Amino acid sequence: MAKNEEAVKNGIFKMGDKNVAYQQFFQGQSYLNNLVGEKDINVGVGNVTFEPGCRNNWHIHHDGYQILLVTGGEGWYQEEGKPARKLHPGDVVVTHDGVKHWHGATKDSWFSHVAITAGTPEWLEPVSDEEYNALED
Amino acid sequence: MAKNEEAVKNGIFKMGDKNVAYQQFFQGQSYLNNLVGEKDINVGVGNVTFEPGCRNNWHIHHDGYQILLVTGGEGWYQEEGKPARKLHPGDVVVTHDGVKHWHGATKDSWFSHVAITAGTPEWLEPVSDEEYNALED
Repeated sequence: MAKNEEAVKNGIFKMGDKNVAYQQFFQGQSYLNNLVGEKDINVGVGNVTFEPGCRNNWHIHHDGYQILLVTGGEGWYQEEGKPARKLHPGDVVVTHDGVKHWHGATKDSWFSHVAITAGTPEWLEPVSDEEYNALED
Repeated sequence: MAKNEEAVKNGIFKMGDKNVAYQQFFQGQSYLNNLVGEKDINVGVGNVTFEPGCRNNWHIHHDGYQILLVTGGEGWYQEEGKPARKLHPGDVVVTHDGVKHWHGATKDSWFSHVAITAGTPEWLEPVSDEEYNALED
């Protein structure tokens, strides 16, 4: 078992299926369980799970925001021009409108968070192996 | 220890302090940990914990909505004119604009949920002991 694999796979919110819809915007394997997605509610809510080393591309939420509620394992959150922030269960991240950022697992740990998302995402370049591998677990 | 007390008190999100701000709208003791409350984000996010028997008054979210992500224990959710729904960790509830409802713990269990709330609440009458006690744990 990889680090935190059992805890993340048996978290409060089910991990769902392989995240096919967004896999083009991720490095590595992620899983998505859509919890809320309704026309008259301006946020989508989903539980996102990352295998060790998995992370999403740099991206921006336009005319919206994203809130991450960390539910399991260990991960990273980084905004452009700032140091990466190590994440643990119970941590909360707020990404404001227009801020370029990425999030994902650490190199050796599974990771999961609930994402509350409003607005329109713009997906950008991947986080390079050079950038990612330079982060200290 | 009451049922689920240890699990709820040691949940992923800290339970915070006694919910003084809203206690006039609750029967029994609740706790509130505000996770997100920012001017440019149209939702507030908080972790709400209920002692056994604690529930909030009937209320309505106007020009908004509420999403509950159940994180611990056992609770109830009820919309006016419908049967109460028993809640367990991992359950998700969406309350649409204008719908009169209440939520809280079961009689004998601690309960916690993350609440994602938009709009303006209108607080109404308490859930009577008669209504509440008639629910089957």
